[in-house]
Amino acid sequence: MPGERKMIYLDNGATTKVDERVLDEMIPYFTEHYGNPSSIYSFSKKPRQAIEKARKIISGKLNANPDEIILTSGGSETDNLALRGAAIYAKNNGKTHIITTVIEHHAILNTCRALEKEGFSVTYLKVDNEGFINLDELEKAIRDDTFLVSIMHANNEIGTIQDISAIGKLCRGKRVYFHTDAVQSFTKVPIDVVEMNIDMLSIASHKIHGPKGVGALYLRKGVRIANLITGGSQENNRRAGTENVPGIAGFGKAVELAKPEHIEKMIKLRDYMIKQIEDSIPDAKLNGPRQKRLCNNINIGFRYIEGEGILMSLDMEGICVSTGSACSSKSLDPSHVLMSLGLKHEEVHGSIRFTISRFTEKEEIDFTVEKLKGIIEHLRKLSPLTPR
Amino acid sequence: MPGERKMIYLDNGATTKVDERVLDEMIPYFTEHYGNPSSIYSFSKKPRQAIEKARKIISGKLNANPDEIILTSGGSETDNLALRGAAIYAKNNGKTHIITTVIEHHAILNTCRALEKEGFSVTYLKVDNEGFINLDELEKAIRDDTFLVSIMHANNEIGTIQDISAIGKLCRGKRVYFHTDAVQSFTKVPIDVVEMNIDMLSIASHKIHGPKGVGALYLRKGVRIANLITGGSQENNRRAGTENVPGIAGFGKAVELAKPEHIEKMIKLRDYMIKQIEDSIPDAKLNGPRQKRLCNNINIGFRYIEGEGILMSLDMEGICVSTGSACSSKSLDPSHVLMSLGLKHEEVHGSIRFTISRFTEKEEIDFTVEKLKGIIEHLRKLSPLTPR
Repeated sequence: MPGERKMIYLDNGATTKVDERVLDEMIPYFTEHYGNPSSIYSFSKKPRQAIEKARKIISGKLNANPDEIILTSGGSETDNLALRGAAIYAKNNGKTHIITTVIEHHAILNTCRALEKEGFSVTYLKVDNEGFINLDELEKAIRDDTFLVSIMHANNEIGTIQDISAIGKLCRGKRVYFHTDAVQSFTKVPIDVVEMNIDMLSIASHKIHGPKGVGALYLRKGVRIANLITGGSQENNRRAGTENVPGIAGFGKAVELAKPEHIEKMIKLRDYMIKQIEDSIPDAKLNGPRQKRLCNNINIGFRYIEGEGILMSLDMEGICVSTGSACSSKSLDPSHVLMSLGLKHEEVHGSIRFTISRFTEKEEIDFTVEKLKGIIEHLRKLSPLTPR
Repeated sequence: MPGERKMIYLDNGATTKVDERVLDEMIPYFTEHYGNPSSIYSFSKKPRQAIEKARKIISGKLNANPDEIILTSGGSETDNLALRGAAIYAKNNGKTHIITTVIEHHAILNTCRALEKEGFSVTYLKVDNEGFINLDELEKAIRDDTFLVSIMHANNEIGTIQDISAIGKLCRGKRVYFHTDAVQSFTKVPIDVVEMNIDMLSIASHKIHGPKGVGALYLRKGVRIANLITGGSQENNRRAGTENVPGIAGFGKAVELAKPEHIEKMIKLRDYMIKQIEDSIPDAKLNGPRQKRLCNNINIGFRYIEGEGILMSLDMEGICVSTGSACSSKSLDPSHVLMSLGLKHEEVHGSIRFTISRFTEKEEIDFTVEKLKGIIEHLRKLSPLTPR
């Protein structure tokens, strides 16, 4: 890659580039069809149609009905709506117990902690050394006062894909609601909410080349939760606020553009990158599973050195990666996900997450691995921890 | 206006056209500077700077500090954050009483009603026949367990501008928090949160030619509230979720573009339209005050006929207006705001809201009034209520 080098973006697990076709879909709703979709004059027809079109595409991708989709401002709001909404509703019925896992996204974990302060009790299931929960442990954890099991579909840091079909079946049998945070897996792992017995599911637009600031909750018909944002009657009285029409139209387009062949492409690139790193860099260990792993996730622990150092060195080469989770990357706390796999502090601190997208090219991976080799070698030379 | 007629949009109180310059400001953050603003690689610098630039512009317009601005997904989320956040925090301190008014936006009213179900008590202050609250009544309503007074700055339906300076002074003296919903008034009425003793203030982008899906809460330094959306550490740990960078950049630009001369222009057009209607249509009565009225709001009651009929007839001429509040315009309930002014049911049902913007032209108003004359005359001929 001679001359002015292109930036290489390997942080698609945090946020993605908006597809040009998504942006084209959004533009008319800013300056042309800007009417209030909830009004009754005919100028509101196009924005209203845009919302319903997106809702149909999104629900179709999940095998849900359009009226089971509540459009929101993103993944975090959606997770909060699911958990807090279910909690408020359950409390009135005397149920106060939630089951989740230790490797959830902070939108789930911190919401559970907030609910604990409000009188709820939470069981945090442990995971094995690849990040999988144990179904028997889940079953044993379900109590008479359990109203909700919230277990993420695919982990954002290590890519572990849980068997949500089995979890759904178990929960349905026990008459406990099952929510899954599918923000990372949506369009990257097939989801059928009916077949998988899912009651609530969170998704977000900015992980799939749609705009930031848009998300959705699948809420199975008949599942009753309280609202998080009350006010006007938008979203069938389930989420108040003037609809973000361009954002919603863009989200729909992004879902429409996501194809199964992208998954195939990403799996090949993922496995290629893992092999290249393992073959060329000593003491590099894959975190998370090799099978049942998100198609775009690569997380590698490099012994004897710090992830921050690797990240900064790659940044100087124009390569964007992340350590730990995207949302707390400013924090120096070790990743709660990696810690829960039983890794040592130093293994956690030396870990880097590379997340690819359907736009990632093999040349970018080759370039990254080549630079990585030199950077790891250099940093290890400087590190007092390196065995000599 | 011969040939293909332009649509005339007089529903700017519901939502506005995005200014082309706002859209230009947003575009690069979709497909070019799309990195996660909370990451530490250099690619996150531009999105982070965009957010901080917008925060500075927004805070500057309110005479607030940038770190007193919490960016959200819009006015409704912001109102919910203020009320629910303050409520959860106050409950822990044994305070459970809120004071608001009967003419608030549904984002306040329905949130108060939800809080009542959760054990809070709410006093709804009445208003006079122009929509103003009585300061003495407010003072008398404040109790030992009152933690919050939430009174809107300017009413969305009838444009009444409350004396929030006096309300702020009273609340500060009584050591009760004062929140104001300034979604309609922001950039249309000067606001100085320090001078006006405001503790919390809600604003939204889509009312000022910015994009939908963005808003902000001014939260005075030292005022403690619980979070509505928990998760990642964005917004200084006060609002989780990946930042909607293009939307935020657009909001900042929209605030920058709002100028005092636009207020002057709108006041002239508003008073011109009111005079034209009053001079040319009999039995047309202005709802709300003539002074202390939002620069873009015109609300007229036409005796003997239904607002819906007027709206549909104007729509056939390509003119967009609204009845009642924007968010419940699909509902056939009479406007709670107009009812609270002491109007009769038939007066309320015959009322239309015209909201202009800085883009509205005199010719559009002339055309609208001309069409309105014919429509009102026609509808009155058909109405059994018309005296003959």
